[in-house]
Amino acid sequence: MAIQYPNGKIYTPNKNSLKTIKKDYTFSNRGKTLEDELNDANEYYLLHEIAVIYKKPIPIQVVKVDYPSRSGAVIKEAYYRTPSTTDFNGVFKGKYIDFEAKETENKTAFPLKNVHLHQVEHMQKVSHQDGICFLLVRFSALDRYFYLPFEKLHFFWNRMLTGGRKSIALIEFEEHAIEIATRYSPRIDYLKIVDYLKD
Amino acid sequence: MAIQYPNGKIYTPNKNSLKTIKKDYTFSNRGKTLEDELNDANEYYLLHEIAVIYKKPIPIQVVKVDYPSRSGAVIKEAYYRTPSTTDFNGVFKGKYIDFEAKETENKTAFPLKNVHLHQVEHMQKVSHQDGICFLLVRFSALDRYFYLPFEKLHFFWNRMLTGGRKSIALIEFEEHAIEIATRYSPRIDYLKIVDYLKD
Repeated sequence: MAIQYPNGKIYTPNKNSLKTIKKDYTFSNRGKTLEDELNDANEYYLLHEIAVIYKKPIPIQVVKVDYPSRSGAVIKEAYYRTPSTTDFNGVFKGKYIDFEAKETENKTAFPLKNVHLHQVEHMQKVSHQDGICFLLVRFSALDRYFYLPFEKLHFFWNRMLTGGRKSIALIEFEEHAIEIATRYSPRIDYLKIVDYLKD
Repeated sequence: MAIQYPNGKIYTPNKNSLKTIKKDYTFSNRGKTLEDELNDANEYYLLHEIAVIYKKPIPIQVVKVDYPSRSGAVIKEAYYRTPSTTDFNGVFKGKYIDFEAKETENKTAFPLKNVHLHQVEHMQKVSHQDGICFLLVRFSALDRYFYLPFEKLHFFWNRMLTGGRKSIALIEFEEHAIEIATRYSPRIDYLKIVDYLKD
């Protein structure tokens, strides 16, 4: 299912959005990671009071800290920890939003090894609490973006666990996910889909 | 306003909660920080499928990483960054929950310098999105806990900005906040208050 969303809102520039436009216009979108693009979208949502959604910091275990001066601490030894949740969460129209974003260079399928068991478990708990939960996938080589609701991800995950294929085919995204048509600003307007699905 | 919550739920022990009880029973609550206590509460909520709420990782700017072996990366230089949001967020019955937790040794007032401007701004944005937003304060020397809804915090914050006192008096907490009566498990059952206020 591919839905083309019309740009329903009338655009009212203000000081902040003009700055955003200039940035987008100058640097286009080349070379941006999916995370960059989603941070751009979230910044846009924040400025326009549409939603409050942030990427969570990467969890780091700090072992050794030096205080070379009054001005601040320097961490000298630390380790990356495995996140126990998804990357992004926040609030949109009172509802809790929680999602994971992944990109693949693969042109025909999304390998499920990109998603971790603890993330699926977390999303399941969030779904039980009536949070809005989804996976956002970019097929980078194709410049195509899909919004896969958690229930669908869960189906494909269980298919893998019961001996089925270890990936989700592009053709399955075309059938079971919603394709996000890129826009001018924000480029990845994923909340349009959240808004559409919640009614 | 001080509300004593009866323990309304019938307690059904399971493997996980027995472990929790043992831990609480053995070590009591002495020496725990407020953050520890809230992590305990959130763990309880997660195990009992009441809510999915986590403390966010502390944001750290990584400058230098070594890869001494295949087993993993070692961060050799990094710096603490100022968080742009509050400490805790998550979902409870579909609603977005967002709060900051602070403790003070002061026996008569909570100094507002413990709260940062960017946190108040963040909470205001969350409130605009109909998220549930509050400040949780522990007067550690008194072993008393208060739930201050964001609207009240905002009032006291603005009082400070307009030249008023730079703290919230204990007596003001007693009047404008909800005191959390500690329980057996979880000790700080703050979601009882969220549940009470949202109806």
